[in-house]
Amino acid sequence: MRRHGSGPDVCLMYSTEPARVAAVFTTNRVKAAPVLVSRDHLKQSRGVAQAILVNAGNANCATGAAGMRAARECAREVGKLLGLGEDQVLVASTGVIGVALDAHVITDQLPALARRLHPDGYRAAARAILTTDTRPKVVGRSVRLGKRSVRILGIAKGAGMIYPRLATMLGFLFTDAAVEPRFLDRALRGVCGESFNRISVDGDTSTNDAVFLVANGASGTPRIGARSAAAGKFLRALSEVAHTLAIELVRDGEGAKRVLEIRVESAKSEQEADAVARSIALSPLVKTAIAGADPNWGRILSAAGNAGVQIDPGRVNVYINGTLVCRRGGAAEFSEPAVERALRQKDVLVRVTLGQGKAAARFWTSDFTEEYIRINASYRT
Amino acid sequence: MRRHGSGPDVCLMYSTEPARVAAVFTTNRVKAAPVLVSRDHLKQSRGVAQAILVNAGNANCATGAAGMRAARECAREVGKLLGLGEDQVLVASTGVIGVALDAHVITDQLPALARRLHPDGYRAAARAILTTDTRPKVVGRSVRLGKRSVRILGIAKGAGMIYPRLATMLGFLFTDAAVEPRFLDRALRGVCGESFNRISVDGDTSTNDAVFLVANGASGTPRIGARSAAAGKFLRALSEVAHTLAIELVRDGEGAKRVLEIRVESAKSEQEADAVARSIALSPLVKTAIAGADPNWGRILSAAGNAGVQIDPGRVNVYINGTLVCRRGGAAEFSEPAVERALRQKDVLVRVTLGQGKAAARFWTSDFTEEYIRINASYRT
Repeated sequence: MRRHGSGPDVCLMYSTEPARVAAVFTTNRVKAAPVLVSRDHLKQSRGVAQAILVNAGNANCATGAAGMRAARECAREVGKLLGLGEDQVLVASTGVIGVALDAHVITDQLPALARRLHPDGYRAAARAILTTDTRPKVVGRSVRLGKRSVRILGIAKGAGMIYPRLATMLGFLFTDAAVEPRFLDRALRGVCGESFNRISVDGDTSTNDAVFLVANGASGTPRIGARSAAAGKFLRALSEVAHTLAIELVRDGEGAKRVLEIRVESAKSEQEADAVARSIALSPLVKTAIAGADPNWGRILSAAGNAGVQIDPGRVNVYINGTLVCRRGGAAEFSEPAVERALRQKDVLVRVTLGQGKAAARFWTSDFTEEYIRINASYRT
Repeated sequence: MRRHGSGPDVCLMYSTEPARVAAVFTTNRVKAAPVLVSRDHLKQSRGVAQAILVNAGNANCATGAAGMRAARECAREVGKLLGLGEDQVLVASTGVIGVALDAHVITDQLPALARRLHPDGYRAAARAILTTDTRPKVVGRSVRLGKRSVRILGIAKGAGMIYPRLATMLGFLFTDAAVEPRFLDRALRGVCGESFNRISVDGDTSTNDAVFLVANGASGTPRIGARSAAAGKFLRALSEVAHTLAIELVRDGEGAKRVLEIRVESAKSEQEADAVARSIALSPLVKTAIAGADPNWGRILSAAGNAGVQIDPGRVNVYINGTLVCRRGGAAEFSEPAVERALRQKDVLVRVTLGQGKAAARFWTSDFTEEYIRINASYRT
């Protein structure tokens, strides 16, 4: 069983059984204390844990040795309360960087959180971890394995400093499936590569990014490994959960009105397709044009040209929600009002074909609105 | 003598003597027709030219063979009018990408422009080439060489799609010095590397970037080469002109209220210092914090951590306008109101010391305001 207990800005996630945990953390050279502590604990416990403590509002990053002590103290107190070793407890934080974290503000709340642990607590937990997000993000799936099912539950938060590279700003994936450690790790990395690692709100990779995948086997179903018949089914469901959460992060990106999906096709290699997709997704000029519902394909073409990839502009086509707007690197004939209407939808698909090969890549980003600036220029959000 | 004639959105720059011209162009894989045509002409003429025709409003980019024909026709018509070969005429354009350029709209104005050619015409020329810029950018210097002087005049325009890599969105540097071709080219590349190539407004490299350095020798002073006694003096003056113009581009960046200078010091190598400076300068979170006069050093530290450089956060200090705000990767004690006041100045200096070596780099960017979004989300700017 999985249980969550929460108060404002802090929550406790608890597995009634020891669980196998895979985790990926930020690639930012500046790593927050909870990232370092969780990484250590997973190493010491060889990937077994039973609780995750999360706080929002203070990132506990750039807080030096005191920050490390605070993170460890929080984990230790959770351990005492739940009868677990310190290294069975993981920690994650999100919020302002560089402000000292007073562990007591959190540990004082722990007894109440522990009393509130409940199987349905995940809804409150998803709310407790939010910062500039406007709504909680929870996705669940269940997978039939023979006569029984396993469940997968995902919780995540955004909404700024989002350009995950290896992980994202706090994602939690839980399953009651029993999963082989090596397969669990591979599954998490594979799934992140196609979800959290393919989104951006603002191109800034956070110092606190972390995604945990917790598998406690409580379903009683046979252990899933790379060669299990159930492996594919499980991976697909896990991938759906992660992907849906990732898109929700983009949709609720700071100030976002629209989700922009960029598909780059007929590239020489997946790497090149990916580079072009990222270059388009990270361009403020493309993102502001989308905010203004402007079918300004010239900015898309220009951003593609800046990807550091040897594209041939004369072979590039650009489609906005299915309409060809740029043909062989030049203007296509299309109805501007129709494309503008399409751009006013909540979801916009920009498809770019490079005409050089067979590889493809996708990437998701939000539009860039005045509201983004308002949120981030206001004092210390 | 150097003469300029202009009308709204188009201007003609003319040297009464054939001049040596060095030029650098955009590294964007999508290159505008005028970039390709000017590059060809300089090749054909072995770096000698006498006129530059510039139009604003239409970038003549992504316009295919018709765009190339239009650019060549414009150059040919200028040549006929001024008695020059087609390849003695260079062209530059700025404006919307992907809209067909009707050469006649420009060539019809040429006789009037030619009649208006005048040594003082550069002021009107600097106005004619503007797009979203709010003011013309002109910088002049004169350098005493023995009993005579040579003059250097620079004109440039911004204000969006500014992240020059090898060049910037239209810079014109004129001098009446006589300069050896090889030294001219080296001087331009060196000077751009320290000015136009070290600025960003929005991280988008334009398709039309071009900087020309035109030296016609009209001063009658001895030819300057790499080993001339005058070389250093000339380079310093040229560098001052280019640097001042580059900073003006940032100051007039779309929506900009402030110029942010980033100095990274005590890095292992200049390359690493440069990567860290660029990462900070390109971070929307840093740029919005500066817009909000928020001494949010955590975002600066986080952006430094994302530069792909092996920095050690525990050795990093950050100073805002001289005040230490982050000491060894953690909070320094400082007066927030005082730093906020400093951040409300027009010029903000962020100094980051990495504590790893002796190399340094500087970079300049504008803050990121709601006005930037308004400008770029409005229809087809």
